[in-house]
Amino acid sequence: MIKFVTSNRNKFQEVKEMMEANKIDIDWIELQYEEIQADSTGEISRDSCTKIARKVDGKFFLEDTGLFIDPLNGFPGPYSSYVQKTIGNKGILRLLHNNGRDATFLTVVSYWDGAGIIQFSGELRGKISYTERGSNGFGYDPIFIPEGYEKSLAEMTIPEKNAISHRSIAVQKFIDHLKKENR
Amino acid sequence: MIKFVTSNRNKFQEVKEMMEANKIDIDWIELQYEEIQADSTGEISRDSCTKIARKVDGKFFLEDTGLFIDPLNGFPGPYSSYVQKTIGNKGILRLLHNNGRDATFLTVVSYWDGAGIIQFSGELRGKISYTERGSNGFGYDPIFIPEGYEKSLAEMTIPEKNAISHRSIAVQKFIDHLKKENR
Repeated sequence: MIKFVTSNRNKFQEVKEMMEANKIDIDWIELQYEEIQADSTGEISRDSCTKIARKVDGKFFLEDTGLFIDPLNGFPGPYSSYVQKTIGNKGILRLLHNNGRDATFLTVVSYWDGAGIIQFSGELRGKISYTERGSNGFGYDPIFIPEGYEKSLAEMTIPEKNAISHRSIAVQKFIDHLKKENR
Repeated sequence: MIKFVTSNRNKFQEVKEMMEANKIDIDWIELQYEEIQADSTGEISRDSCTKIARKVDGKFFLEDTGLFIDPLNGFPGPYSSYVQKTIGNKGILRLLHNNGRDATFLTVVSYWDGAGIIQFSGELRGKISYTERGSNGFGYDPIFIPEGYEKSLAEMTIPEKNAISHRSIAVQKFIDHLKKENR
């Protein structure tokens, strides 16, 4: 049993489906924790992991995700969650008025194995749509169209999204690691 | 001699003018430090102050400033510096397309007196302008018009800005405290 530390029910649901398909049990630890301000998602996640290791017993992992929009110099990046709460998807669409629309979703999974931190990352390239589309998923999903697709992430089911997403790529690397660890 | 910990030359300049007028010597400590992510400027500043107290000898202060825009739910708030670096003033103007324009500048000065932290805050109400105006000041000054004025903060000289600004209000409270402390 590994603990997944997150306050986001949607993230837990996506990760749980992947873990269950691989017969790995996870336990949801709904814990609030302080994040540092930094330009790199990996750095923020590593710092959080170190702090949580002082509070939570045994093995656990957490994940951080950011949306980096090219024509906005990587905004909202590591502050994606705050930006989502304040200006939201409508704000992002307004900012992209006459700009390009290329963007990258990045997830970093940080795993505390009882001795140290191991990180796994996943990226998804795509474009920001012109309107909000779909009602599945969460966060920026309604405005993100993955490269090679016509649908937004919010127009996909969890299995469809998990087949290609930044989060699933990072989690799959993590699952591969866990399998080796338990061999 | 009190140390002012900041990496921002403009902030140092504004504060120095006020301190000198009150015959208080300040020393510029250009130090990078990690800030936590939190919704409150005061909380972030207090945390930073605690961390810096472990590294810097003697009395010091730092200041944090955020611009809180009413129709954007307080955005960019505590992340004002990151937002300025990425989407900038042009991004803010784009976000305010058809919204109201009321906003508040908030400065919190955190002072480590060798034993504990004392905080002083200052606020300035105003409106976001429709275009960038003026070339003085820094950050959001070109798009912020204080209540009761027709000019943006970037169209004012340092003494004009210091007569009304959020930063000067907080620093004046701090100066009053220092005078009592040294009595």
